Amino acid sequence: MPKKNNEKLKVISLGGLGEIGKNITLLEYGEDIIIIDCGIGFPDSEMPGVDLVVPDVTYLEENSDRIRGLFLTHGHEDHIGAIPYVLRSINPKIYGTNLTLGIIENKLEEHSLDVEPKLCKVKPGDVIKAGCFSVEFIHVNHSIADACALAIKTPLGYVIHTGDFKLDLTPVDGEVMDIARLGELGKKGVLLLLCESTNVEQPGYTLSEKRVGESLENIFSRHSDKRIVIATFSSNVHRVQQVIDTSVRFGRKVAILGRSMQNIVGAAIELGYMNIPENTIIDVSEVKRFKPDQVTLVTTGSQGEPMSALYRMTFSESNKVELGPNDLVVISAHPIPGNEKLVNKIVNELLRRGVGVFRDSTVEVHVSGHACREELKLMHALTKPKFFIPIHGETRHLAMHRELALQMGMPDKNIVISDIGRVVEIDKKSIRLAGSVPAGIVLVDGYGVGDVGNIVLRDRRHLAEDGLIVVVATVDSETMEVVSGPDIISRGFVYVREAEELLDGARGVAEEALWKCLDAGVGDWTQIKNKVKDAVNRYILDQTNRKPMILPVIMNV
Amino acid sequence: MPKKNNEKLKVISLGGLGEIGKNITLLEYGEDIIIIDCGIGFPDSEMPGVDLVVPDVTYLEENSDRIRGLFLTHGHEDHIGAIPYVLRSINPKIYGTNLTLGIIENKLEEHSLDVEPKLCKVKPGDVIKAGCFSVEFIHVNHSIADACALAIKTPLGYVIHTGDFKLDLTPVDGEVMDIARLGELGKKGVLLLLCESTNVEQPGYTLSEKRVGESLENIFSRHSDKRIVIATFSSNVHRVQQVIDTSVRFGRKVAILGRSMQNIVGAAIELGYMNIPENTIIDVSEVKRFKPDQVTLVTTGSQGEPMSALYRMTFSESNKVELGPNDLVVISAHPIPGNEKLVNKIVNELLRRGVGVFRDSTVEVHVSGHACREELKLMHALTKPKFFIPIHGETRHLAMHRELALQMGMPDKNIVISDIGRVVEIDKKSIRLAGSVPAGIVLVDGYGVGDVGNIVLRDRRHLAEDGLIVVVATVDSETMEVVSGPDIISRGFVYVREAEELLDGARGVAEEALWKCLDAGVGDWTQIKNKVKDAVNRYILDQTNRKPMILPVIMNV
Repeated sequence: MPKKNNEKLKVISLGGLGEIGKNITLLEYGEDIIIIDCGIGFPDSEMPGVDLVVPDVTYLEENSDRIRGLFLTHGHEDHIGAIPYVLRSINPKIYGTNLTLGIIENKLEEHSLDVEPKLCKVKPGDVIKAGCFSVEFIHVNHSIADACALAIKTPLGYVIHTGDFKLDLTPVDGEVMDIARLGELGKKGVLLLLCESTNVEQPGYTLSEKRVGESLENIFSRHSDKRIVIATFSSNVHRVQQVIDTSVRFGRKVAILGRSMQNIVGAAIELGYMNIPENTIIDVSEVKRFKPDQVTLVTTGSQGEPMSALYRMTFSESNKVELGPNDLVVISAHPIPGNEKLVNKIVNELLRRGVGVFRDSTVEVHVSGHACREELKLMHALTKPKFFIPIHGETRHLAMHRELALQMGMPDKNIVISDIGRVVEIDKKSIRLAGSVPAGIVLVDGYGVGDVGNIVLRDRRHLAEDGLIVVVATVDSETMEVVSGPDIISRGFVYVREAEELLDGARGVAEEALWKCLDAGVGDWTQIKNKVKDAVNRYILDQTNRKPMILPVIMNV
Repeated sequence: MPKKNNEKLKVISLGGLGEIGKNITLLEYGEDIIIIDCGIGFPDSEMPGVDLVVPDVTYLEENSDRIRGLFLTHGHEDHIGAIPYVLRSINPKIYGTNLTLGIIENKLEEHSLDVEPKLCKVKPGDVIKAGCFSVEFIHVNHSIADACALAIKTPLGYVIHTGDFKLDLTPVDGEVMDIARLGELGKKGVLLLLCESTNVEQPGYTLSEKRVGESLENIFSRHSDKRIVIATFSSNVHRVQQVIDTSVRFGRKVAILGRSMQNIVGAAIELGYMNIPENTIIDVSEVKRFKPDQVTLVTTGSQGEPMSALYRMTFSESNKVELGPNDLVVISAHPIPGNEKLVNKIVNELLRRGVGVFRDSTVEVHVSGHACREELKLMHALTKPKFFIPIHGETRHLAMHRELALQMGMPDKNIVISDIGRVVEIDKKSIRLAGSVPAGIVLVDGYGVGDVGNIVLRDRRHLAEDGLIVVVATVDSETMEVVSGPDIISRGFVYVREAEELLDGARGVAEEALWKCLDAGVGDWTQIKNKVKDAVNRYILDQTNRKPMILPVIMNV
């Protein structure tokens, strides 16, 4: 198909929970579509029981013949976690760096899929042709190894997608973000910058990952009599490497706790991303054989997760390790918004048990993986884009990132804040919002993908709020007489023993409503059930000022 | 009863949610008990449907003849909110300052109580005799007017309870915390300090309330074309006064939105705590008659509360005011831990609608009411206590406050971190934990006080997590044959339309289990119900990897 002269470049954010331009983004020109990242979101308290949230890819399913590839910036869950779900309906070539694909392979093994995924390994500097696009991988620093920004050559000019990044001038693996290449592209001319906004509220520069190493060194040398337990994100391979290096220097063995930590450390060793001297790693079951000062534990649970190894050790639910006054716990992570209470719960319990605790609010045992304001400015200054779409953030972050770009001299009309499912249309002269496509989120609960939606969630929230009253009766459908019941069963409403009178009252009200219907010759079961429901509802509200879910059931014999 | 020489002073924290020494504290010596504060806690996400949390005062009920008075430090909910509940069983004299009692009177009007509360008004400097105790009220600064610390003379020496406090050298009402009196007591000798710990993690000093006034002045002068909407805590009378003063200077009328804001401003005006020129306040219904630059709105909702006036204006649920590009919203508050997401939800929506937003993370439109580390040190330096119990905080705060006291030279053995229900025993020479009394929390849901407990909450969380399946059947108890059903009804589990097959399967499994029991001659209904429940449970787990609550109901005819 010949390209028309008036063809536009389109940028679409397909899914995401609160944050825009995260999880999955499309670039479209003529008949060609490329996908950037394919991640999951984590449900909030408004979505009880939901395990995770994947993007709605209806639009990709409808246009599967136009997809020229899926390009991954790095291996974090919010950028790759939806791949096993999306592969059920589309199967594009998947391009990513070594560690990123290693993590995906691990993940795909857990899902048994019918399709053979087409994983294509790349390294920074590689350029992949994909329809009218050429995608170049550019090394950046982040809280996971092997992270990249993407420079996408399009018929209209270069688009730069930063992925998640920070500038680390002393990274653990020695590879500083490829500032030179970004600057070179900026000199050539960049049409559009898509830049992450996570830390746009933070002034200055993010500290180097090496800073954590220095803090660990201090802690290990000052607390040489204690067993040291370090909780961190399993995917932060460089962090774990630093813990191991420090332990080795102080003559300590290291035990790895938690399934995801064991998985990722295993993959990282196999792929050559970690370097561990022989006889350093010991099994958890061996920990008890060592004196406190001879061992370091690296564990999951830095977000306070109630099933994590750290939680179980803290609340004596682990049969292998229990924490006490001989232990020092370092929480080498910052609580993700919403997790503060979970983390505090663990910290309070540890202190109560006499365990020393270090966390990022007291010493520098964690640094962010995301660019702060000065680094964002550097990205703008290097790439000198004509147009700008702030991505990866709630509206409040994107609005602040727009302000930052305005301060740097970009005209307001060259900046667009998009939304999930909105199409941003770009030609050589202008950028604008233009229409929308099907997009949003699909909830995953257990094995079910998409079978939990708003009605189910509304019912769950209702049940959580005030519980449930079931009113059940058996009616002879010939004589229209009540032959059994009505009985009242409640759950999550009140202590039944203390509320016998109340529930008896409800039973009486239900019985009265039921007989009234039957006496009046009402034959429509739905109508009868509604009358019973309304009567019980009114009675309970009046007596208790609560609104439990009322579930009337009428059996016929 | 003659006092024994070996009588000990006892300090007991009776209730509180996570925080220790908050809500309600007792001092006990010989036969005398005094109560300090009587507040509520706010439920967390683990307590769905619970409205508020009051202290368990069983111990006070059992010792009601020994109570010599309830002494209030200030009028915040977490210090006075439980009074209407506690007055149902005990009725002590209640001592508080003018505004504190004014707020309580408002509150008591909403509850219709059978008892006549014995409110006794005091002012800073007053000393009240209460059994062997003398309680002196000492003026402190806080985010509500008329706040006091208490200096309690006991047979063993002075006890100082700081209440909530900060040092404000330029307070809005001109009254700086009574540093001199605290210092004087310190010189005389203080036996025990009970000091709040809320901001122990914050270095330096809290800013003065006047700083907010300066920020408001800036905002009003720079945005003179906009309607200005200011959301803050209704109880912060000085903050509201500053908003009104600034509005008057800029020639704006002021409308007060939200029931609690209207109540407290009303009370504050009546009691002389606010000073508002005539013709300044307008009704909400009049707002539309004024141009944006002629009016300021003061509103509730600074914590993002979904029923608040700010929320309704933001999401177009208010029929009086809708917010848009002509508005500027100032959130003059810091989100209480757990409320961040609610506040962010409002901010994102306001920005999406083109409303300008200022909040405390961007400009100084809020200052804390609680002492930071240097102010806490000042309190220790002034009062020079022999013994110290850190209060008002989770264990992590109290542990950090202990560190602060150690840094100031206090011996470790003179500091005790207590817990809810624990008794701290003090004589002239030592302080220690010694036993415990009945204590804890009582949940209030609707009209019910204490009828929601752990089992009910566990059921609510279970229902919220995976929903509910009711299995109902009618059995002829003579022939032991199933005459109707089993039927399956689900709520909060899956979209029923998309899961017909699954629910049919569950019905089949239930039917099979039921007949199997009946055929085997099982006559025990509980046993039959358990078999049905187990069978359905297994089937659903196997099919969906979920565990909804299964509720088997068998009716007999």
